[in-house]
Amino acid sequence: MQQYFLELEASASIPPTLVSLSQGDSHHLLTVLRARTGQEIYVVHQGQRYLARLVGERAGLAQLEVIQRIEVDTELPIQVTIACGLSKNDKLDTIVQKGTECGMASFQPVSLSRDVVRWKDGKSIQKIDRLQKIAQAASQQSKRLVVPRVSSLKTLDQWLQSVDDYDLKLVAYEEEAKQTTSYSLRQALSLGQKGQKMAIVFGSEGGLTQEEVDQLRAKGFITCSLGRRILRAETAPIYALAAISYQFE
Amino acid sequence: MQQYFLELEASASIPPTLVSLSQGDSHHLLTVLRARTGQEIYVVHQGQRYLARLVGERAGLAQLEVIQRIEVDTELPIQVTIACGLSKNDKLDTIVQKGTECGMASFQPVSLSRDVVRWKDGKSIQKIDRLQKIAQAASQQSKRLVVPRVSSLKTLDQWLQSVDDYDLKLVAYEEEAKQTTSYSLRQALSLGQKGQKMAIVFGSEGGLTQEEVDQLRAKGFITCSLGRRILRAETAPIYALAAISYQFE
Repeated sequence: MQQYFLELEASASIPPTLVSLSQGDSHHLLTVLRARTGQEIYVVHQGQRYLARLVGERAGLAQLEVIQRIEVDTELPIQVTIACGLSKNDKLDTIVQKGTECGMASFQPVSLSRDVVRWKDGKSIQKIDRLQKIAQAASQQSKRLVVPRVSSLKTLDQWLQSVDDYDLKLVAYEEEAKQTTSYSLRQALSLGQKGQKMAIVFGSEGGLTQEEVDQLRAKGFITCSLGRRILRAETAPIYALAAISYQFE
Repeated sequence: MQQYFLELEASASIPPTLVSLSQGDSHHLLTVLRARTGQEIYVVHQGQRYLARLVGERAGLAQLEVIQRIEVDTELPIQVTIACGLSKNDKLDTIVQKGTECGMASFQPVSLSRDVVRWKDGKSIQKIDRLQKIAQAASQQSKRLVVPRVSSLKTLDQWLQSVDDYDLKLVAYEEEAKQTTSYSLRQALSLGQKGQKMAIVFGSEGGLTQEEVDQLRAKGFITCSLGRRILRAETAPIYALAAISYQFE
């Protein structure tokens, strides 16, 4: 069944009996899907799903009657922030889209020294806005009740000033030299428990420098390996989220 | 370190001391990466990795001296065949590329009744060839020792005639009505063990029909659910392979 997020004022603790969809969602429901009066859909308000029924259209907006709350839980039992370097092309789009499907709680772009792309100051807000829209669409499609937050771009230094409230901090890092011992993902995840907050850092195609890894370690990050094969920049976060979902759900 | 697959005759049980790379790989190593004499790379022959050194060029082909065998295992402990319906756009490319990174052993395209695309007879061979090349490139990049085999397109009926030698047969299926009990992926994977052969079936965007699911069940396939969120056609196989790798490695 189709699902849309309601755009109500935050003060509305439950949706009123009659609600309108946003312009974009109304267009999707009425014009793209050609829904008819009486069709049932899901609407989400403040992390709760409700069954609703299309009753008409007013000024181009779909009018819905909210029928009842549906008990459902779609969120990972552990809140995961994915922090990534800036990859080329549409790789961050892929990470945000599929990361959302796999239960990511928030996405933090971080500029790292080996990134092959830089975001110009003027472009950064547009890019974040685009990623946030991708997260919204992916939440709708995967029927999540919460849209992951896409945070504004930070340097590693800046971001590391705000990581103290994560219970578990990991960095995906494959050291060719194997001078220090890394945890396997399984060992690393065994340190976490349901209800906690977790952050995992991934380099871009260029990877992380030894200095960045040292800086992360000094802030309590544990290096861990994602298995026997080398994963692409956009595959690694999806792999990790799938493993987390498998481990904790 | 860069890795290439050698194209030697099958009768060569170990590579000779001096080997050439293929034309494409030679171009990549010599022209794209601008490797110099003395540079070390990995070469793979019959599922074994060897350390080699660039010693020169002859008729455009990179000449390598094979130094020693490197003990390494990059394969999943369970052989997984991913069977998928025909999805739109480049979704099968994504599945084959990332499935290869995540350890898939082989890929079987299957035409299903709800597929939104059909492969014309004349195009099918080209498409398989393209997917096989993607698998080869992804194996190289993820440093696998085996290139997953991409099988030719079959109907579900045709394919189901050759599934008897899989030890574990799963189908990812989300029944809205929940009339029959599905296993969770965890429960389903607990039925498998290392060394076995496993097949998992995924619908395209259109999903599987009840008849197709019944047909699969009659052949011993177990329906299983991939967690709390609805995954896209191209995300589901990657999610499953990540979970399998996490479970068995």
